[in-house]
Amino acid sequence: MEKFMSENFLLSTETAQKLYRDFACDMPIIDYHCHICPEDIAKDIHYENMTQVWLGGDHYKWRQMRANGIDEYYITGNAPDREKFQKWAETLPLLIGNPLYHWSHMELKKYFGYEGVLNPNTAEEVWNLCNEKLKTMSVRDMILQSHVKTICTTDDPADSLIWHEEIAHSDFPVTVLPAWRPDRLLHIEQEGFASYIQKLALAAQIEIENFSDFKKAVLSRMDFFDRHGCKVSDHSLSYIMYVPYEPEEIHLIFRDALQGNPLSEEQIQKYQTACLEFLAQEYEKRHWVMQLHFGVMRDNNKKQWKCLGADTGFDSIGDSISISQLSAFLNHLAENDTLPKTILYSLNPSDNAVIDSLMGCFQDGTPLGRIQHGAAWWFNDSRQGITEHLSSLANLGVLGNFIGMLTDSRSFLSYTRHDYFRRILCDFISRLVENGEYPQDYDALGPIVRNICYENAKQYFHF
Amino acid sequence: MEKFMSENFLLSTETAQKLYRDFACDMPIIDYHCHICPEDIAKDIHYENMTQVWLGGDHYKWRQMRANGIDEYYITGNAPDREKFQKWAETLPLLIGNPLYHWSHMELKKYFGYEGVLNPNTAEEVWNLCNEKLKTMSVRDMILQSHVKTICTTDDPADSLIWHEEIAHSDFPVTVLPAWRPDRLLHIEQEGFASYIQKLALAAQIEIENFSDFKKAVLSRMDFFDRHGCKVSDHSLSYIMYVPYEPEEIHLIFRDALQGNPLSEEQIQKYQTACLEFLAQEYEKRHWVMQLHFGVMRDNNKKQWKCLGADTGFDSIGDSISISQLSAFLNHLAENDTLPKTILYSLNPSDNAVIDSLMGCFQDGTPLGRIQHGAAWWFNDSRQGITEHLSSLANLGVLGNFIGMLTDSRSFLSYTRHDYFRRILCDFISRLVENGEYPQDYDALGPIVRNICYENAKQYFHF
Amino acid sequence: MEKFMSENFLLSTETAQKLYRDFACDMPIIDYHCHICPEDIAKDIHYENMTQVWLGGDHYKWRQMRANGIDEYYITGNAPDREKFQKWAETLPLLIGNPLYHWSHMELKKYFGYEGVLNPNTAEEVWNLCNEKLKTMSVRDMILQSHVKTICTTDDPADSLIWHEEIAHSDFPVTVLPAWRPDRLLHIEQEGFASYIQKLALAAQIEIENFSDFKKAVLSRMDFFDRHGCKVSDHSLSYIMYVPYEPEEIHLIFRDALQGNPLSEEQIQKYQTACLEFLAQEYEKRHWVMQLHFGVMRDNNKKQWKCLGADTGFDSIGDSISISQLSAFLNHLAENDTLPKTILYSLNPSDNAVIDSLMGCFQDGTPLGRIQHGAAWWFNDSRQGITEHLSSLANLGVLGNFIGMLTDSRSFLSYTRHDYFRRILCDFISRLVENGEYPQDYDALGPIVRNICYENAKQYFHF
Repeated sequence: MEKFMSENFLLSTETAQKLYRDFACDMPIIDYHCHICPEDIAKDIHYENMTQVWLGGDHYKWRQMRANGIDEYYITGNAPDREKFQKWAETLPLLIGNPLYHWSHMELKKYFGYEGVLNPNTAEEVWNLCNEKLKTMSVRDMILQSHVKTICTTDDPADSLIWHEEIAHSDFPVTVLPAWRPDRLLHIEQEGFASYIQKLALAAQIEIENFSDFKKAVLSRMDFFDRHGCKVSDHSLSYIMYVPYEPEEIHLIFRDALQGNPLSEEQIQKYQTACLEFLAQEYEKRHWVMQLHFGVMRDNNKKQWKCLGADTGFDSIGDSISISQLSAFLNHLAENDTLPKTILYSLNPSDNAVIDSLMGCFQDGTPLGRIQHGAAWWFNDSRQGITEHLSSLANLGVLGNFIGMLTDSRSFLSYTRHDYFRRILCDFISRLVENGEYPQDYDALGPIVRNICYENAKQYFHF
Repeated sequence: MEKFMSENFLLSTETAQKLYRDFACDMPIIDYHCHICPEDIAKDIHYENMTQVWLGGDHYKWRQMRANGIDEYYITGNAPDREKFQKWAETLPLLIGNPLYHWSHMELKKYFGYEGVLNPNTAEEVWNLCNEKLKTMSVRDMILQSHVKTICTTDDPADSLIWHEEIAHSDFPVTVLPAWRPDRLLHIEQEGFASYIQKLALAAQIEIENFSDFKKAVLSRMDFFDRHGCKVSDHSLSYIMYVPYEPEEIHLIFRDALQGNPLSEEQIQKYQTACLEFLAQEYEKRHWVMQLHFGVMRDNNKKQWKCLGADTGFDSIGDSISISQLSAFLNHLAENDTLPKTILYSLNPSDNAVIDSLMGCFQDGTPLGRIQHGAAWWFNDSRQGITEHLSSLANLGVLGNFIGMLTDSRSFLSYTRHDYFRRILCDFISRLVENGEYPQDYDALGPIVRNICYENAKQYFHF
Repeated sequence: MEKFMSENFLLSTETAQKLYRDFACDMPIIDYHCHICPEDIAKDIHYENMTQVWLGGDHYKWRQMRANGIDEYYITGNAPDREKFQKWAETLPLLIGNPLYHWSHMELKKYFGYEGVLNPNTAEEVWNLCNEKLKTMSVRDMILQSHVKTICTTDDPADSLIWHEEIAHSDFPVTVLPAWRPDRLLHIEQEGFASYIQKLALAAQIEIENFSDFKKAVLSRMDFFDRHGCKVSDHSLSYIMYVPYEPEEIHLIFRDALQGNPLSEEQIQKYQTACLEFLAQEYEKRHWVMQLHFGVMRDNNKKQWKCLGADTGFDSIGDSISISQLSAFLNHLAENDTLPKTILYSLNPSDNAVIDSLMGCFQDGTPLGRIQHGAAWWFNDSRQGITEHLSSLANLGVLGNFIGMLTDSRSFLSYTRHDYFRRILCDFISRLVENGEYPQDYDALGPIVRNICYENAKQYFHF
């Protein structure tokens, strides 16, 4: 029987405790994909209170408050911050078994030194304690305290990257790099595509009248990102499509989109296939890593989406992957020697085994593997989700070459997710050892743990 | 090492044993969805022997007897009851790990005081013991002994509800309510639809010549059910569809169906969309709960279906859900403020995470959550299935707000499934506590357990 | 804490150890589906070194070497055998949690008496030790040492079966039978279909000009296989289709294929439906078992496939099954009383519950069940995969009637997979016992274990 949130939290065996203590807990963090705001780092902002730092943009928490019958007024509405905090404190005790329960208490402990339980009775004490600490803790303090070496943010191709420049020219010892997230280049079907293209043209200083111009502008922006240290791209797609096309078709589709003409589903898919293919080829040239996030169904609740916009807690897991299209896409790139290093993430946990077996078909002697199965993500970032991902990867791939964890978070307090992952990783490995499935040889185990926590990512991304 | 079927059955930790003993085992039962026959309760029937009470309509057992090479003569055929019982006793020992093994022995222990093992050698002893007890045990005795407070049966809209009236006017202290199961209203493609509509017209005393009449008749029957205490509806569908339609189309489709004209697949889906949408809106008006059961593939073996009819053991799990249609259907209701409290059940366990993430998109401040993920159902009603459901719900939703278990059974001995569920629930929660993932604070844990066992259902359905 | 690869490997409870020791470990092996080469047995070949016996054709290992950044030169290329072995020894320690880690060490221990760990430092020692042993160990020695009673190979309908004849006439005490693998009969869409039909015609001594001739030739070859002791067929399909057709259509499709005319997707599926239906009916007549392997996506990497051919490590798990077509196919056979004993294997582990529930719909009083859910296969042949299969089967079917394990391997050292399976089986059953879910009654448990290890397969196949 383990005490709640003890130092051995989630470390159920002595081997796990030793692995964590000797090889995991002190490793630095490379957070190669997150959604924190570079402006906040550049300005080194302070948060006024716990509601702002904890509940401000965290749609994970908003969802659970809604599911607990809390009125929207206390979630995204105009209720006073103290009242919002109370509503969260009322919800938390019911979240037994939910990762938010773990994360919240890990964050209270690590950043605020609070070792108790947050509930409606302790809310006032926690509120006061944390707000006091926030006065002397800026976002850079949070990052430094978390032992972070490298951060990759999430940036639009048209972004000026001024905040990255400002950070780079400051004395902040953490490397903060832009990451290329060209969703708006691909989503030709979305309203505002044409005006976005004008924005891109402006950023690139290249007039865009057709698909060739578009590609020139994109290349220019990639070079710009490259000069700012970008090493990784990221795509968010419902699913990975592969619909063969003729080059001239793409020109017509692109022209139609600029003119605001409606596109058929097939046209959209052909354009996206062509665009993703073009980008992949350019990633490979620049040795950038391509991240593909899929298996998501976004904005399910249109009424709420109209009120609150995207990323406010109304997304869900999408259908299982169509393996034939993903396979065809990867194959097409491999046949043309344009398959970049690629990380596959599906939000649907039923896809684990499919991804792990498919990626084995495109490994080609690249150190650590050209293709990686990205860490358990978003709805799967739980003890169960992480364990299932590790287990599938171990069964079907080379666990020792895994590039490990990322936060994917909007919050500066989420680095505890790395600690959460490391504990689960050490526990997973220790069970293999304690079952007699791997020797209790720390000369072999130690490097495996250290590599998954840090060294593999460093090597894979060339940080 | 736990003794077989001991009092600590399935309770693997001391915390689990305490949670069960102090907070779960004595809670009353609300069985908000089952298939028992109200006439049997009204008449308070006795069963003659164990074959009649246990094997009479239990297609779960029939399937396993067939899979054990037993001839149909001993299953649904004319073999003497004693011989049928023997064949079941021969099958049971091979069902190691099957919930039928657990349920059978739990029922023998609870209702008949038999603490041994049923196998071919003990069959004679068990047969005699149980048949003796059955002489003095009516179905009302079984219900009372099970500590049941409320039962919702499954009733056709054209049903007279005379047995519910008779029970209500009797001195039986258990509340037995009708539940609205309008499958025949939706299955416009089935033979006999037109004649069923005449039956409905008769029950409603409203002539039905078109879709408007049909809606009037349905409303009349809903009012009738409402007056009899109905608070919950239930739908059985292969999958949840959403196919937009024009109102006039539905009138034509309905007219065609009444005239016996063939319908296209698209017409069927449009009608079902319209019909379910209409019903949902009326449920919301009446504060009824909408239960949606899907992910089933029925009557796979046509030859047997022709001999034995539906619900005789030839159904299977269906394909994974199409999330886009389910999402579109819920969204359409939410946009029109006509989404009733809804319980989603899929028979395909791969859908757990999808449902848990999707329902979070439609929570809106309703106490306990407008949408619930129904308890592990039918083929998933096992230790593994229940645990996976709880685990998915805990990871993605608010476990503390779960409305808990139902029997979904045709048998008066199935209330042990609530006990089975409660043991697994307590064990699941205890593991979180023993892992240090939740404090060992019985002031927090006790209410969570009691609520899931009983109080949440009471509040959600307004019993 | 269990020592690595101890005698209690994977046996985590005392009950498991007893079940394994008393009922499992000494049972003979029936390997009813594998890919070993009968010519090798007939000639009783020796392998020159460990690379040849271990890495020669083992695409499981090749995949992981590629994923570990090893150049193809050391995998399927011309590197010296000793260097290839070293590269494997470098990869193995990173495969923590992978079944290859277990299998490799089980094989080193069982066949070569090596109880240490294979890694880059011990590679030289292992290489020398094993090569020395290989001098005095032929493939027949390996089979005999493994306690194998019966082997079913995998043979093309046009095969002469001369090696099977030679083995049958030798003094080798193990029964080595051909198995009917008619993939090339079904794959009408593949290049070379017409020339294969000529090969079949030659083998059958029947001229094939139309579909009727084809069926005659096939029957002739089935009779030939039957005379050589064949009792089992095997099909490898992406998925099981059922597309109704008119008999005359099949004649036209077949004629078109012989003439090299292109076929539509629908024509291919109709032909395959007709062909599989015809074969199934003939299996049932001859009391052969029909094995259906599906859920595979083959040759994903076309570039590598062009270099290295099929079965070289570029296959993956395919999409989840379409249950409606599989159900319709089985139903069609059942309605015509032509459903043979059938074993269903899906490579997609998400299909476990679907298969287990569907097969229950077609059980009909055949001893042990007409339909079996085949053992965890290929990518699922791991501790997790085997456990999930057993668990699903136990929850939904009759575990005691399971026909158990097969190697499905190309290697003569893979019989350890039976031992691997037996340990996991005993561990799985013991946990039910230790949880109090089944009595600790070895008179009941012993036969269950022995039957699943050996007796059920003997009875099911009539060996």
